[in-house]
Amino acid sequence: MTTTSTNTPIVTGYPSTMGDDVQLNTTTLIRHAARTHPEREIVYRLPDGGWDRYTYGAAYERVTRGANALRGLGVEPGDRVGVLDWNSRRHYELYWAIPGLAAVMVQLNLRLGPEDLSFVIDDSGTSVICVDETLLPVAEAVAPLLPGVRAWVVMTDKPLSEIETSLPNVHHYENLVAAASPHIVWPEIEERSAYGACYTTGTTGRPKGVYYSHRAIYLHSYAIATNIGMVLDDCTMLITPMFHGQAWGLPQAATLMANKIVLPGRYMAEDTKPLTDAIIAEGVTVTNGAPAIFLPMLHYIETLDEKPDLSRLRMMSGATEPPLTMMRGFHDLTGAEIVHAYGATETTPLVTMNRYKPSVRERLSEDELFQLKRKQGLPVTGVDIRLIDGIGNDVPFDGVTQGEICMRGPWITTTYHNMAEDDRAGRFHDGYWRSGDVGTIDADGYLKVTDRVKDVIKSGGEWISSIDMENLLLAHPAIAEAAVVGLSHPKWQERPFVLIVPRPGQAITLEQVRSHLASAFANWQLPDAIEIVSEIPRTSVGKFDKKRIRAAYAGAYGGEQANA
Amino acid sequence: MTTTSTNTPIVTGYPSTMGDDVQLNTTTLIRHAARTHPEREIVYRLPDGGWDRYTYGAAYERVTRGANALRGLGVEPGDRVGVLDWNSRRHYELYWAIPGLAAVMVQLNLRLGPEDLSFVIDDSGTSVICVDETLLPVAEAVAPLLPGVRAWVVMTDKPLSEIETSLPNVHHYENLVAAASPHIVWPEIEERSAYGACYTTGTTGRPKGVYYSHRAIYLHSYAIATNIGMVLDDCTMLITPMFHGQAWGLPQAATLMANKIVLPGRYMAEDTKPLTDAIIAEGVTVTNGAPAIFLPMLHYIETLDEKPDLSRLRMMSGATEPPLTMMRGFHDLTGAEIVHAYGATETTPLVTMNRYKPSVRERLSEDELFQLKRKQGLPVTGVDIRLIDGIGNDVPFDGVTQGEICMRGPWITTTYHNMAEDDRAGRFHDGYWRSGDVGTIDADGYLKVTDRVKDVIKSGGEWISSIDMENLLLAHPAIAEAAVVGLSHPKWQERPFVLIVPRPGQAITLEQVRSHLASAFANWQLPDAIEIVSEIPRTSVGKFDKKRIRAAYAGAYGGEQANA
Ligand SMILES: Nc1ncnc2c1ncn2[C@@H]1O[C@H](COP(=O)(O)OP(=O)(O)OP(=O)(O)O)[C@@H](O)[C@H]1O
Ligand SMILES: Nc1ncnc2c1ncn2[C@@H]1O[C@H](COP(=O)(O)OP(=O)(O)OP(=O)(O)O)[C@@H](O)[C@H]1O
Ligand SMILES: [Mg+2]
Ligand SMILES: [Mg+2]
Repeated sequence: MTTTSTNTPIVTGYPSTMGDDVQLNTTTLIRHAARTHPEREIVYRLPDGGWDRYTYGAAYERVTRGANALRGLGVEPGDRVGVLDWNSRRHYELYWAIPGLAAVMVQLNLRLGPEDLSFVIDDSGTSVICVDETLLPVAEAVAPLLPGVRAWVVMTDKPLSEIETSLPNVHHYENLVAAASPHIVWPEIEERSAYGACYTTGTTGRPKGVYYSHRAIYLHSYAIATNIGMVLDDCTMLITPMFHGQAWGLPQAATLMANKIVLPGRYMAEDTKPLTDAIIAEGVTVTNGAPAIFLPMLHYIETLDEKPDLSRLRMMSGATEPPLTMMRGFHDLTGAEIVHAYGATETTPLVTMNRYKPSVRERLSEDELFQLKRKQGLPVTGVDIRLIDGIGNDVPFDGVTQGEICMRGPWITTTYHNMAEDDRAGRFHDGYWRSGDVGTIDADGYLKVTDRVKDVIKSGGEWISSIDMENLLLAHPAIAEAAVVGLSHPKWQERPFVLIVPRPGQAITLEQVRSHLASAFANWQLPDAIEIVSEIPRTSVGKFDKKRIRAAYAGAYGGEQANA
Repeated sequence: MTTTSTNTPIVTGYPSTMGDDVQLNTTTLIRHAARTHPEREIVYRLPDGGWDRYTYGAAYERVTRGANALRGLGVEPGDRVGVLDWNSRRHYELYWAIPGLAAVMVQLNLRLGPEDLSFVIDDSGTSVICVDETLLPVAEAVAPLLPGVRAWVVMTDKPLSEIETSLPNVHHYENLVAAASPHIVWPEIEERSAYGACYTTGTTGRPKGVYYSHRAIYLHSYAIATNIGMVLDDCTMLITPMFHGQAWGLPQAATLMANKIVLPGRYMAEDTKPLTDAIIAEGVTVTNGAPAIFLPMLHYIETLDEKPDLSRLRMMSGATEPPLTMMRGFHDLTGAEIVHAYGATETTPLVTMNRYKPSVRERLSEDELFQLKRKQGLPVTGVDIRLIDGIGNDVPFDGVTQGEICMRGPWITTTYHNMAEDDRAGRFHDGYWRSGDVGTIDADGYLKVTDRVKDVIKSGGEWISSIDMENLLLAHPAIAEAAVVGLSHPKWQERPFVLIVPRPGQAITLEQVRSHLASAFANWQLPDAIEIVSEIPRTSVGKFDKKRIRAAYAGAYGGEQANA
């Protein structure tokens, strides 16, 4: 009853009389916002840390000029145009200008090393790249590797003469925009054409290219808006990087709903104060980010004498399970709600969002409701989810049985760019994308991600969730950070191994770790060894890099290096 | 900048990797609601006036059984299946069961006369009709005219043996459902296939067939949900008839958002008390209807000692401009908000909805805001609107210049069923559907419908809005109802003519009418004659039947019968 299969043939019924040929194009969203809400503000942070603002009307004029400028550089439908930028207003403009031409906006993760970054640019066949002035060093490091890139467009408030760079064929975004016509007749784009591309982070392997269609982005925008419950007078701040997974589709959803938008520009996890101050000052009601960003914001709020009233604020939190104390902290101090969501590069990304159903709100205590928030949430309409076991059978939705999370829907990938046929093995199942995540779905319909297929520890034929173990370790007063991996073991296949960063001035032993974990784990599940470290290796987006951890400690239990 | 034209060719860009082949099917909406929110309630009114309730889970099981039962009757993809019913739970089930099979749900307006009704059934090629027991007389009146209908399914709680009917080939819905399997593999339906059909009311001519695609309905559901601002814990009552324009798409939007749903069953404008009581008792937060229904509800609320708190309630009001006093009345007595919306059978129907933009809320006084609510509202994302003059030129959006309202979008019709090529003349313009309505769009983007092209009074080369005149007449203390039409005049082309129903015990003269209207109309615009009547002719859905009025008084000004 709950799933569809791609084995079902497509059946054609009776013809309709409707405008079915009108293509779902992202241009429609910005055109609408600019035409009906031209006065609505977009606020953006300047390189010097100050703030400025313009309107949808003004932004749209720069979008049309920008598109004409790119045309002037020879950009044609189907061309790939890269963007290397923070969450800036120019980035926002390119979100519409590039796809509006039926070209592909290639999202360039500015935290990737030169090897991965040049792979992405090369694999995508990107020929023009727009780069923010502050990221010129990143661009310069890869430029020599990229003969295919025929133009670089530097984005800066300075005149071109003040820009020193080794990049070849340099153009100046502001000069181009100023010289271009504001009049454009947008092409109507076949909706399955790529709107943009994003490459997976590479946590578990080589980055893989995901190319989002206009259709997928358009439908996903509505999914985001309806699931967050966006309304016309919301104000959305984009904290998630716009260079990865289109900032979770929030820019498009906010534009669809003609929200006021706040663009924080260049920021680091340390820039907690300006982000938080802007949320308060601009009246932000919707934002998104990872716990790694939200947690320092909470710590900053704790230092404020007068706590802000953020009771309209919904903070969409993804990438990893949000800590309970953080969710409670925001709620208790400010009234803000953490909205836990789950997805991946391959899923545009919205797959589940944790909203309380009326029935659970009636049934559960406040404590239980916060516990429920730790789950990744309810599948959104349009996405079909299945959980499959190791041999491809569906497992029941009973809240206990784990299975690999597989999904299918208009904004879920069904292939990868340039993927060889034999590389497809293990990535798709009956038309569903296999996420590589393991989870359960409970009787209320809530999905819980328990681990990654590659990270779950396979010990003596049973599965141990590395994530559950990490979360429990974090509750120990002496532990600041903890990562758990399975290391190859000659007898048990794998055994858990723990990296720990102690809190300043604290120490912890293997025995203390084992007795702490014994409250929730069976004896055979407890780790046999721990390692005290000052830092845990992380990927470009701040996730634990378990590939590197496993490689570094491969032989610790005397086994072979496994599933790196 | 604001419009698109169908002269633009469709451009294909770079291929995407997404699930673009996943079809937008309405089945997805009910499947999702049943799977993720099986416990959520659907409340329905019984024939005896009592109320009962079941859940999405139970409803979905009956949907699957109903679909299997229809298959058992030989219903194939593409077949047309008619429904003649009130806003009942069985009607709700058929909303999913029929389209789910890739068959077409033909909406049968139970208020049509036998001639129009049999035209609709015949024109659509409907072969099976599901009819509520209470509407058997309506069915029996047309059955002899319809050799093409090969099966009738009677919907009743009584056993078949207790049903007396002259209909041939009668089946019993409940027996079929009970006997059918609850297991189904839904076909994946090519999204441009017709989901359902509705024929226009025939206010201005013969009913014309509009066939909605699955794609149109799916996208429209999101448009409704995002524009009303629906959330998971909303409770939606369907007051607008489900047999016309799919109750404005609210059933699908409410299901998309897994709202609690309230189905009032059979009701008349007089059934104000049970409807209003249910709104209060069930905690309804979203509903829809025409002012003709909402106004008596307000009068009923005025009689209540304790006024209900309906501050979460949004009442989507269409069909005609809602009276200011009614909007204020609901607001002042209950906190409920009238949300003015506009559309037509041909537009699924959502085209505009009146929501306050943050900028107008800041700028306007409370009085001005209520005045603004009289306008039909802001175009919704996805629908392009143009205003054209008599020779097809676009007129400016200045809030003053009137033009015929034309639109284009994924849920706007681009043709009619069985329409001969030369019948298309005057109905479409550059790929846009011509609504036959005249209106303005102001600088804030709000559309105001000033009249119908056929009703606007063309006098001496100028246009007089019959609607504006009617609204001003209603403000006169002696006038209960007033209809204004243009009658053919040998010298002036047309001149305004007024039908008036006075308030009980009141009288009014032509001179009083003219001097009352003189506050807003120029001398040459004032009517030359009035007629005092006890009732104004109305169409099947309660609109003034101006065709009949013009025909009845055609010669009054000595001209020929015009544009009837
Ligand atoms: N709310 C969440 N809770 C737990 N894990 C999450 C959550 N949201 C996302 N994730 C994890 O992040 C993954 C998606 O991340 P992303 O697509 O950016 O790259 P990656 O999967 O880390 O990289 P790669 O696929 O290249 O190995 C999900 O598959 C899941 O493992
Ligand atoms: N909010 C509104 N304010 C004013 N008029 C409205 C509003 N909503 C709808 N209408 C009118 O109702 C019309 C749509 O009604 P519908 O499609 O049910 O049939 P009809 O146009 O009356 O019939 P026909 O097209 O067969 O003559 C619109 O074209 C418009 O004239
Ligand atoms: Mg991944
Ligand atoms: Mg009409």
